[in-house]
Amino acid sequence: MSREAFIVGAGMSRFGKQSHRTIEEIGQEAVRAAMKEAGVERGDIDEVFCGTGYGGVMLGQRILRDLGMTGPPVTNVENACSSGATGVREACAAIATGRAEVVLVVGVDKLTTFGGGTLPLEASDPDVANGMIMPAVYAMRARRYMFETGATPEHLAMVTVKAREAAALNPHAQMRTPTTVAEVLASRPIADPLTLFMCCPSGDGAAAVVITTAARARQLGVQPVKIAASVLQSGYYKTGFRDTAFSELTARTVALAYDAAGLGPEAVDMAEVHDAFAIAELMYYEALGLCERGEGKDFLERGDSKIGGRTPVNPSGGLLCKGHPIGATGIAQMCEAVWQLRGQVGARQVEGAKVALTHCTGGGIAGFDHGACAVHVLTV
Amino acid sequence: MSREAFIVGAGMSRFGKQSHRTIEEIGQEAVRAAMKEAGVERGDIDEVFCGTGYGGVMLGQRILRDLGMTGPPVTNVENACSSGATGVREACAAIATGRAEVVLVVGVDKLTTFGGGTLPLEASDPDVANGMIMPAVYAMRARRYMFETGATPEHLAMVTVKAREAAALNPHAQMRTPTTVAEVLASRPIADPLTLFMCCPSGDGAAAVVITTAARARQLGVQPVKIAASVLQSGYYKTGFRDTAFSELTARTVALAYDAAGLGPEAVDMAEVHDAFAIAELMYYEALGLCERGEGKDFLERGDSKIGGRTPVNPSGGLLCKGHPIGATGIAQMCEAVWQLRGQVGARQVEGAKVALTHCTGGGIAGFDHGACAVHVLTV
Repeated sequence: MSREAFIVGAGMSRFGKQSHRTIEEIGQEAVRAAMKEAGVERGDIDEVFCGTGYGGVMLGQRILRDLGMTGPPVTNVENACSSGATGVREACAAIATGRAEVVLVVGVDKLTTFGGGTLPLEASDPDVANGMIMPAVYAMRARRYMFETGATPEHLAMVTVKAREAAALNPHAQMRTPTTVAEVLASRPIADPLTLFMCCPSGDGAAAVVITTAARARQLGVQPVKIAASVLQSGYYKTGFRDTAFSELTARTVALAYDAAGLGPEAVDMAEVHDAFAIAELMYYEALGLCERGEGKDFLERGDSKIGGRTPVNPSGGLLCKGHPIGATGIAQMCEAVWQLRGQVGARQVEGAKVALTHCTGGGIAGFDHGACAVHVLTV
Repeated sequence: MSREAFIVGAGMSRFGKQSHRTIEEIGQEAVRAAMKEAGVERGDIDEVFCGTGYGGVMLGQRILRDLGMTGPPVTNVENACSSGATGVREACAAIATGRAEVVLVVGVDKLTTFGGGTLPLEASDPDVANGMIMPAVYAMRARRYMFETGATPEHLAMVTVKAREAAALNPHAQMRTPTTVAEVLASRPIADPLTLFMCCPSGDGAAAVVITTAARARQLGVQPVKIAASVLQSGYYKTGFRDTAFSELTARTVALAYDAAGLGPEAVDMAEVHDAFAIAELMYYEALGLCERGEGKDFLERGDSKIGGRTPVNPSGGLLCKGHPIGATGIAQMCEAVWQLRGQVGARQVEGAKVALTHCTGGGIAGFDHGACAVHVLTV
């Protein structure tokens, strides 16, 4: 009989440019915070997963050594921007099989210097040499989406304005200064129609969660958050501009997640979605079923996705404003979900949230077009 | 109830320097071979793990795209030289939980060019800048082992001679020309007492296995090999020269594996061990319990570890002669074990083998001293 998995502690490092710190230090900050919140000691951790995109070889072991955790199994996992979420999925399996009682998952990247360990694939890729980097991919998605739905650059700017409003309330966020539609539109062009403020910032950061069984969660005396679904899929990633601005990969993944959790999009009280660029949030409203297809811009305009709206999306500020240190992102989304579901986030609280969805994608790296998507459903 | 996992197909690419091929092509060669042996089609694969040390971001997706396998979950795992074995462990969990029926695991690295994707950590590390690279670590282990046991450089050379004898019978091996103790000792010095021939070669390669349930294995009609134990641990890696030439990490890991498999070292019919340098094999005879502590050189001298001896070790030629493309190694060890247990390896057959052990370590990268060890027990 498979055992269910529960998050009992969540922790984040500061997000932002911190080139003066090592990637290990950044990871340790998140690990300590998550363990403290869970009330577990290092001897309680049976197993560790570490998600990173560019952190280099054996990052998990490097982070843990100076915490004195040198015995348990450590598995480093990588799925680009879905690396951290992928680690959570494997942690759920470790709990389900009975292999471990308490699992630590940390996700981290240091994009200011690539951690001294690796370099991105981009440089050697012919597509990339010809300009097919991520802003270009998302810019083409934006053009296609605008063509299909009548959305305007103002709608893209509104996504950023909403994200900044939320981030202003989140001490963990990287971009906390409120902005306006006019300011977003006037910011430096990156890949038309995307301006600088419509693109997530580069930064360094880590996030961690402690996952355990129902029985152990009760012993710890902290409020557990159930991982009701943990789904990973792969699929074509560089889509959304050829035939239609719709993410088949996200739609397929979330359908499996809703099925696993036994609920549908109408039950979702809040979502953290992969808004690496402003257009992404509009597309993912639709692919996740939070609104009808083609109605993403209306969902946004009505305020349905704001804190206080029908289904708040990215109350943390999202990748656009909380920041997006690749390997940390999937877990940072869960940190926000956990704290929201427990009612711990103060001014940015989604009142009465009982069901949270986290969604991240990964791919498009190096011009190759086979990517990943991970969706988790968390409940209290 | 956890389900047991069985290997139903194993495949390897050619091992050796192949800078003209992409890392994806090398991986695909192994994947195709393993799937063919298992008799599975791409639509049968529910989930994929890819182990690599230096293959760069989303290597599994890159390998699978051109095979038309773009739907199932793909998880890239990394634990340096234990990356492939770590993938097998996660595959066993995926089977055990019921999350998947058929899992593909591929391990691959292209050391001739680091796959265009990553660079090793060594360059930026102060220890490494001061000379603490892997041959130096193993050279100090060798000196300590010689001091403790009375072993001589001739014993180290005998390990290589034995490995070459075996590799000469293995078409997958990189170094197949038989050699002599005198020739090994006369080869170029690398880190005293280690000579060139006592160090594993650099090379490119991939290995893959298809893992499934007992029921599905019966349907496929191929001879399954049971994964009776799959254990991963972490621990201090740069040991063996400070206090004692004994690998606590390997001894601790194998003890858990023997316990999980319900057998002891006396039941092991053959072993593939992590002989990245000749001294390692002598140390691991002892840490794995294949002989008494301090008697590794005698075990070797008596021929106990040769094909036809009491417990043949590295009948494939081992890392020293089969080759050691980091991420592929743990799975390549299992390929040899599977083929040996099925009686399919011709002249290098270990007669009547029913229990095989595979052992790999990972770490020492970048001068940091927290590493991994993975042990699997396979049975028929």
